Amino acid sequence: MAYTIGIDYGTESGRALLVDVKDGSEIATAVHPYSDGVIDRALPDGTPLPNDWALQNPDDYIDVLKHAVPAVLKESGVSADEIVGVGIDFTACTMLPTLADGTPLCRLPELRNEPHAWIKLWKHHAAQPQADRINEIARQLGESWLPRYGGKISSEWFFSKALQILEEAPEVYARADRLIEAADWLVWQLTGVETRNACTAGYKAIYQDGTFPSREYFSALHPDFADVVDTKMSRHLLPLGSSAGGLSDEAARWTGLNPGTPVAVANVDAHVTLPATGTVAPGTLVMIMGTSTCDVLVADTVHDVEGMCGVVDGGIVPGSYGYEAGQSAVGDIFAWFVKHNVPAEYAERAAEAGTDLHSFLADEAAAQKPGEHGLLALDWMNGNRSVLVDADLSGLIVGVTLSTRAPDIYRALLEATAYSKRLIVETFERSGVPVERIIAAGGLPAKNPLMMQIYADVLEREIAVIRSDQGPALGSAMHAAVAAGVYSDIGEAAAAMGGLSDVVYQPLPENSELYTQLYADYLYLHDLFGRSTADEPGGVMKRLRKLRLAAAAKTEPKTSDETEVGVTG
Amino acid sequence: MAYTIGIDYGTESGRALLVDVKDGSEIATAVHPYSDGVIDRALPDGTPLPNDWALQNPDDYIDVLKHAVPAVLKESGVSADEIVGVGIDFTACTMLPTLADGTPLCRLPELRNEPHAWIKLWKHHAAQPQADRINEIARQLGESWLPRYGGKISSEWFFSKALQILEEAPEVYARADRLIEAADWLVWQLTGVETRNACTAGYKAIYQDGTFPSREYFSALHPDFADVVDTKMSRHLLPLGSSAGGLSDEAARWTGLNPGTPVAVANVDAHVTLPATGTVAPGTLVMIMGTSTCDVLVADTVHDVEGMCGVVDGGIVPGSYGYEAGQSAVGDIFAWFVKHNVPAEYAERAAEAGTDLHSFLADEAAAQKPGEHGLLALDWMNGNRSVLVDADLSGLIVGVTLSTRAPDIYRALLEATAYSKRLIVETFERSGVPVERIIAAGGLPAKNPLMMQIYADVLEREIAVIRSDQGPALGSAMHAAVAAGVYSDIGEAAAAMGGLSDVVYQPLPENSELYTQLYADYLYLHDLFGRSTADEPGGVMKRLRKLRLAAAAKTEPKTSDETEVGVTG
Repeated sequence: MAYTIGIDYGTESGRALLVDVKDGSEIATAVHPYSDGVIDRALPDGTPLPNDWALQNPDDYIDVLKHAVPAVLKESGVSADEIVGVGIDFTACTMLPTLADGTPLCRLPELRNEPHAWIKLWKHHAAQPQADRINEIARQLGESWLPRYGGKISSEWFFSKALQILEEAPEVYARADRLIEAADWLVWQLTGVETRNACTAGYKAIYQDGTFPSREYFSALHPDFADVVDTKMSRHLLPLGSSAGGLSDEAARWTGLNPGTPVAVANVDAHVTLPATGTVAPGTLVMIMGTSTCDVLVADTVHDVEGMCGVVDGGIVPGSYGYEAGQSAVGDIFAWFVKHNVPAEYAERAAEAGTDLHSFLADEAAAQKPGEHGLLALDWMNGNRSVLVDADLSGLIVGVTLSTRAPDIYRALLEATAYSKRLIVETFERSGVPVERIIAAGGLPAKNPLMMQIYADVLEREIAVIRSDQGPALGSAMHAAVAAGVYSDIGEAAAAMGGLSDVVYQPLPENSELYTQLYADYLYLHDLFGRSTADEPGGVMKRLRKLRLAAAAKTEPKTSDETEVGVTG
Repeated sequence: MAYTIGIDYGTESGRALLVDVKDGSEIATAVHPYSDGVIDRALPDGTPLPNDWALQNPDDYIDVLKHAVPAVLKESGVSADEIVGVGIDFTACTMLPTLADGTPLCRLPELRNEPHAWIKLWKHHAAQPQADRINEIARQLGESWLPRYGGKISSEWFFSKALQILEEAPEVYARADRLIEAADWLVWQLTGVETRNACTAGYKAIYQDGTFPSREYFSALHPDFADVVDTKMSRHLLPLGSSAGGLSDEAARWTGLNPGTPVAVANVDAHVTLPATGTVAPGTLVMIMGTSTCDVLVADTVHDVEGMCGVVDGGIVPGSYGYEAGQSAVGDIFAWFVKHNVPAEYAERAAEAGTDLHSFLADEAAAQKPGEHGLLALDWMNGNRSVLVDADLSGLIVGVTLSTRAPDIYRALLEATAYSKRLIVETFERSGVPVERIIAAGGLPAKNPLMMQIYADVLEREIAVIRSDQGPALGSAMHAAVAAGVYSDIGEAAAAMGGLSDVVYQPLPENSELYTQLYADYLYLHDLFGRSTADEPGGVMKRLRKLRLAAAAKTEPKTSDETEVGVTG
């Protein structure tokens, strides 16, 4: 008997999953929440944080190793001798500065109260000025890598955050021997060996065609940034599924596993999910649907695709080009709607019906035909990631009447995210990247069958659903099996350990026909509001945002922690 | 001592107001609800009604005379000898078929179960096919009166309803000796004498330049409709403020007033409110703000104004042109929003604060600067009356984010109705009809000071507020005083009996500046979505409506009684 453990590091907690390498059977799982969670108001010592900051504590990640891994061993009754490998996946870009030995700078007493010494979580959004400059200078210098990222580098990504450290806390930057993804840092803690994985390097740190951006480019951003790669990073990247080393003695003590147990190089939560569907063949788009949605897809050739998050050689599967696109908010939109826009009446009726409010609204909405509510929405309540890559956009709803009720709007919002998905799929195909089938993964599909049917109808395609509820952890366990040599590559592991559920959503032709009519109007509104500059008539959203920011600058900041939302991937 | 009584007939009830003719002091008031209210599901005997129907029972109007008038006499202690006149105002077009002696056809036992024999209330919307033909044929024949109604006759108006009777119940049409506004019918019941007032004839029955539409025009609508005016109406119209006759013995018994007490000719609720503000001078726009809003204004000259409801010689004040414009939903939008779109949290916080939900949302919204919520809305949740005259339009909101909360949307909706008003005012002025000052009346101004301040800011104008809470009933009492000869004309009565409150809303320049920026975007969205045909890209609302109606045609009708909304005026 042989097992691997996949560990999925999320935004609020980490999950360990113990898996049978033979067939991917999930034997035991355990979740451990981070004590400090998302640090966005103040450091643990009380040092206040500015708006848009989001940090984490490295000790919380280690605690997951200490609690969740022993828990799955105990629950399963599997012995450490039977664990042949460990793999992890992480939110990204989540990064930190460390000493040469891997010690996080925030553990140094003299830097404990310095926010820039801590881990910047993926949804740390305070590096927008740096991202703006990164993009502006890349355009000016005609950097060849920019189209690989849909034409825009995000404030969430590696060099935006690194440059923010340099500019706002040069002493922290100087002190940092390494700037590193938390994913790679954790593998370092597991093995005692520093490695860098091809996935985060490609998607988050602009590693393209065998190299990072040039010294000249970095120097144009800031003279002291010229050597960032050579002095604080590594050009030695390992392919996904390779072994980073064996478990160190210390990590063995934390986890209860044997020293020397192979550890796979790190991976990213969305991307690692793809093989968990059972295939790594080109042409399969996997939608990881949660608060936001990441779409991942592999192909044999490289193409520029408008508004994608990135295309990376070996970024998902070694030897193929991995494409990523995404929607900035999906589940977040439905959660926002249900929490902030639905009158008490529906909560009462849901309680009477013995169901939750989401399901109740979905049931009411499911009784409708396409078009019956008379509404059409743009799903940009958290900006648009693909294909417009524009955080300045906002949501829209049209067709509202005095007869409009909560289930109508709820359905219109589901549909809006489906139209958005159709455009992503069409954009891939138009750009030469075939999408032959679509598989849904993540937390939403099981929760919202109406949404899945709407996606099938809007996309006019069959939609399959991943078998595992824990796609990322399973994908990590599969990479562990490859790193351990159980399988020769991730494709073989996928075939053996991954798979689909029995649920398949088929498009209903009469619905698809109506949705095709509505989609034409979605596209009209999409292009009108989404592609206009602030100076053009259709740039209404951008002008509204400017006025909003100008007004907010004169007023108290909002205190709701829901004003910060985003996506990992 | 001399007093008059004004009786305001609304949609659900009638109100009597006893007024001192010297200065307009309101001595006593009483409301009597209609037993049958709005008859929109089934006749009292159970005969079911189709969708979009709205009827009333004439006995309910008589009951108001029998209860509310004696009540104000009793409450005030004023004797019948001191009552020098009675005036009424009514919703319009609210019309019915009668025998030659004024007996409503619905009182005839053999027609009791015939819906077309009953009173069609203003918001009876089932005559849209007739209205469509009325407009189409008017355009084909180049009828000169069409521009006087903003280019479109409403399904709510007199000939739409009359033609529906002819086409759907020719035996009822044949049996009707008279087709008459309920306003005029009630004066007939009070005096025993049939009269027709210039206001409803002009605004609702296309009386222009001294004549109704031609026999040829009516005959083009339907051969049997050719003689509708000559056989069932009257070309003898009385100016507003004239006496229709003295109170009949029977009506004296109903009311407790003296036989022979002068009764003014009937009037319409919105229009009669204008003199209650204290002036009938040209250039004063009076906004009667309630569930919907009517704007009335007098001028010395006649102009075509885009999208106005009508311009009528003597329609508001004898000797002047009366202009009417309006917004299909104002208070209705806020009520819809508060009832159907606000989570329980706000009701709880309102209760804690000891206030109602509207006020609580308004207080929260009042703390914001213009533009701070980042939203912009089109207030067409019940279509657009002025200036687009298009019931197929619908509401829109743009700028929504995951941080958007109920007070944000509430404020955006208030603002949307203000932008709409600004466009109405600008359209009047551009068309040569000066708007020198603005007075607010109706139920909303006292309830919603934030809304009033927003109107002042958006319009960049001072907004005064009528003194009386019962503008229509006071206006009717003033017309009664003119009919009684206490004053020589309504201008004199207005100066003596009408007036303004002490409250004046002044525009705040910094707000007006921001609103002018936002108004430019309102106009852009207004023209794009409002002026595009269904075949043009911007005709999204019209296409959505078509799909909605097509889907609804295949489904059960909605059962909410809120699906029918509209406005009187």
